[in-house]
This record gives sequence, C-alpha cells and structure tokens, in this order.
Amino acid sequence: MAERAEIREVGPRDGLQLVSTILSTERKLEWCARTAAAGVRRIEVTSFVPPSVVPQFADAAEVARGAVAMGGFDVAALVPNLRGAENALAAGVHTVNFVTSASEAHNLANVRRTREQSLADFARIVAHRDAVAPGRVRIGGCVATTFGCSIAGAVPEGDAYALAEAYIAAGADELVVADTVGVATPAQVRRIARRMVAIAGGRPVICHFHDTRGLGLANVVAALDAGVRIFDAALAGLGGCPFAPGASGNIDTEDTAFLLEAEGFATGIDIEALIALRREVEGWLPGERFAGAIARAGVPSWFQRAAG
Amino acid sequence: MAERAEIREVGPRDGLQLVSTILSTERKLEWCARTAAAGVRRIEVTSFVPPSVVPQFADAAEVARGAVAMGGFDVAALVPNLRGAENALAAGVHTVNFVTSASEAHNLANVRRTREQSLADFARIVAHRDAVAPGRVRIGGCVATTFGCSIAGAVPEGDAYALAEAYIAAGADELVVADTVGVATPAQVRRIARRMVAIAGGRPVICHFHDTRGLGLANVVAALDAGVRIFDAALAGLGGCPFAPGASGNIDTEDTAFLLEAEGFATGIDIEALIALRREVEGWLPGERFAGAIARAGVPSWFQRAAG
Repeated sequence: MAERAEIREVGPRDGLQLVSTILSTERKLEWCARTAAAGVRRIEVTSFVPPSVVPQFADAAEVARGAVAMGGFDVAALVPNLRGAENALAAGVHTVNFVTSASEAHNLANVRRTREQSLADFARIVAHRDAVAPGRVRIGGCVATTFGCSIAGAVPEGDAYALAEAYIAAGADELVVADTVGVATPAQVRRIARRMVAIAGGRPVICHFHDTRGLGLANVVAALDAGVRIFDAALAGLGGCPFAPGASGNIDTEDTAFLLEAEGFATGIDIEALIALRREVEGWLPGERFAGAIARAGVPSWFQRAAG
Repeated sequence: MAERAEIREVGPRDGLQLVSTILSTERKLEWCARTAAAGVRRIEVTSFVPPSVVPQFADAAEVARGAVAMGGFDVAALVPNLRGAENALAAGVHTVNFVTSASEAHNLANVRRTREQSLADFARIVAHRDAVAPGRVRIGGCVATTFGCSIAGAVPEGDAYALAEAYIAAGADELVVADTVGVATPAQVRRIARRMVAIAGGRPVICHFHDTRGLGLANVVAALDAGVRIFDAALAGLGGCPFAPGASGNIDTEDTAFLLEAEGFATGIDIEALIALRREVEGWLPGERFAGAIARAGVPSWFQRAAG
C-alpha cells in the first residue's frame, strides 16, 4: 500500500478571490460536490470576510452550511478574525483556517492589524471553539508570506517560525505554510518545511503554493522531501491574493494530483473527473486564465497510479 | 564560490523544429549572439537533417559556420546520422549531438532506422571525428524517449541504460538523457539520472526535459539531486518533436536559470537580458506559444543570485 498524500481544494475560496464573475451559491456547491465526488477529502469552501471587502464571499454562510450538509469531506473556511471564526463555527464548518502573515507589512495590508493583534484574535478563536464546539472543530494557523512578501521583500525565516510556534502554543491543530505571493524556491521550501514539520510536533502541516514563477510543483516535491503530506491546490490553477500583486494562480489541482501519484503517493483522486469538472467551471468563469498542463496533455496512457 | 550549473540553449534547434515561420539565417545568428551575450556558454544552434524533412534547417551549415565564427560559446548541432555528422564537422561545430531513441518504435519513426543501425552509425561518426578532427570535437550520445514514448508507451529502463552504455563503449564524450515526449516525473528522474551519471563515468550528463505535463522544473531539481549539472532549455519554452505528439515545449531557459540560481548554483546568466531577447524573438515568430513564468512575473526584487 502506498503512503497517502492529500490535496485540499481551495478553488472555491482562493480560486474565486480575484475572478470578475460572482459565482452563484448553487454553482459553488456544485463545484464542491463534484470535487468531493472526484475523491478530494478536504475543501476550503469559502472565506468569512466582510462582503464589502470581497463581494464574492457574501454567501459564505450558505456555502459553508450547504457543504457541511453534503457530508463526505472536511469543510474548511478561511477566516481573518474572531468575527469570521464565529460565523464559520455557527455555519458548522469542520476546519477554521485562520490567517496571519509572517510579514507585518502584508498582515497590515491583508487584515488591517498587526501580527500581535492577529495572534490575540487567534487565542480568542481557540477559546470560542472550546466553548461552543469542544473537540469537534479543527483550527488551523496559516503562516502567510512565509517565503517572501511583495510589500516587504525578503521575510526573515525566524518571523515565520515564531508565528508558527505562537500558533502551536495557542492551541492550533494544524499549520498552513503559505507562499502567498508565489516566490518560494525548492531549496528554501525543503529547509523551511522541515522546520515547520518539527514545530508542528506531529500535527498536520499543509503547504500552500502559488505557481507564479513556475516552481509550484517543484516546491511540492521539496515539501514532500521535508515530510509534508497535504497540499492546497485550486482547480485549473485559479487563484490569487488581492494584496499580493502578481501572485497569479495556486498550483493546479489536476497537475498536483498527477505529481503526487507519480511520486508514489495514493491520493484517491480521479484526475479525469477533475478535468471534466474543470471544463464545466471554465464555462462559469468566462475570461479567466485556466492554467495547468495535464488537462491539455493528458495523463500518459501507460501511467501507473500509486496503489491506494 | 557557488558550484556552477549550465544551461545549453536549444531554442534555435528544438525550439524552431515545429514553428510555422522559417526564420532567416541572420535572425538565427542574432539569437545565438544575444544568447551568448546573456552568458549562456553552450548553444545547440541547428540540426543537420535533410531539408526535405525539416525545411527550417536548410541553412544548417551557414548557421553553424556563423555561430562558430562568433566565438565565445560551444556550438552544438543535432545529427541523426553519419551524413549529418560529416556536414556538422565540416561546418566546424564544437559538439555533435547524435540522437537515438531508447524506444525502437520512436527511433524508427524519428530517424527511420533501428537502434542497432543508429549505434553502428554512431561508431562511424566517432571514427570520422578521430580522422578529421582528433581531440577537437565533442561527440554526445543522446538517449531519446528515456522516460517514456508516445508511440510505444512505457520504455524499459534497461533499454535506456543499454543505449547509454553502448554510447560510452563506442567513445561518446557526453550523454544527453532526454524526455523527448514530456512524460518524466521527479522520482523517475532522480533514479534514472543517478544511474546515467554512473554510466557516464565522469563525462558530462545533460538532461533534456519538456514541460508538457508541468513537471519540467521539478524534474530539473530531481536531476540536480542526482548530480546532473547541465540542462537543455529553450527561450520562452519553445519546442517540440514532430514525432512526439503533445511534446509541447522545452523547459523555459529564463525559468530554468532562475531555478538554478535559487538552488544555489551559479549560471553566469543574465536573466533580464534573456527576457529582452525573448520579447524580440516573439516578434519574429508570430502565432507561437511563448511559455514561462519569470518573464511574466519577474525575478523577485530581493532575490539573491548564487555567487558565481
């Protein structure tokens, strides 16, 4: 039996953050349902941010409730603050993914508060979870701009580690190590991911890469070397960050699934089903850039999947 | 001082193989000159194939002579047979790159002969070189379809190793390990490249990857791990093989240079100069697909090159 590696689909969240079409709640839920049917076991379905900031997520509660009602997969939501977390918990999500940037400048731009203020909110979120849903909801701490920041430039590695350690000390159930602006390189990923796995002390570590400079999948291989087994990815490589100019495109889910299987990890994912879904979503989002290679070139006919 | 890694630019050869525009000899030479000025020290400038097969290379001798006259870089030419090698040597090239496929079916389609017939020609080429240019011209043996074949499917690794061993026994000065149809995956590359480095016994090993399935740069990292230090790449990810359907695009030179520097290897390459050249070549080849991420996203402003 091959070891498992997992993809968390973030297309309905990160993938929709910058697109010009507001997708209907119904289509977002169809996207989730078909992603789950293709074998994906974790989906970040929405972001609990004020609709004035990202109108795309005005239906966050409906999407989260609808996704939870489907069953069969872990429903995650991104939250920037306590208010978002309260709403996400009220909607019944399984995982709350709280984001703070290792770069102070990026955190100020992204969530309009200092890292210290974000961490204080994180502690309140853990306390709130313990009060209303003890033992039932996972809280992830996302270390954004771990590998560099388009505003501040290079980010001292110590800042990213300190943030990760603070999350763990405050009760995080998992870490998300994010290359928010698409500047990570493989040797850097191997080194930092290894340290993050150590800091996580047995808790899951999820890597979140953008393919902005063509190194997204090379970074996945580097993170696998470091022991990471869960990766955020978006259908068709959609995605971007409004406060990270040039951060175009998460790594592509179909390509990442192909890579993980090629590296000998069982993903449980039906790549052909994802390609069919992608063609559907392409019709929903006219004018958007649909990236990725496997959907164009196909899985080689003789390709052997990892035995799952 | 950082260890060196090299890129061999194959744009004027592999990159032009399938484009619809016949580029003038003058522009091909300008491409070479500007590539060399950007710090690239090896260029595969043309292919000595019959013009009836690839009209783009009807000026092979003129391009080779012009490139040799420039000085300052190693001028390589691809050859499929003795006749091509004789013409390449007559034109004064520094490196003859002879191609045989590990897949018999691909070799029959590509050069219309069996692998055994190709190897017999290789021995004649070495003998001819020893007669006309002893000690002056390098002869490379390229193992095409090492990682899989779009005609035959999976290629037994033993066939690729046997071909590489036969090249070395016949006097090859270097090996080129080629993913002709763009199906290689990182774990496979790490394993096979390690074995090829051992077979080469201290002679250079060049890896040649296409980015057909998004894994080109991940494969470079895997090959670096295996000890490979020279990579074929094409400006703007141009390229393809007429007998390898779907083999779109060599790995992109600019992106590969960025990756190698990020991994701590000194390349001597001026990435900005390549991006400027790329914009020029884009005007020469209307309608072609120009790939690559660095030209779009830029090198991060705080990026530290390897100390060369």
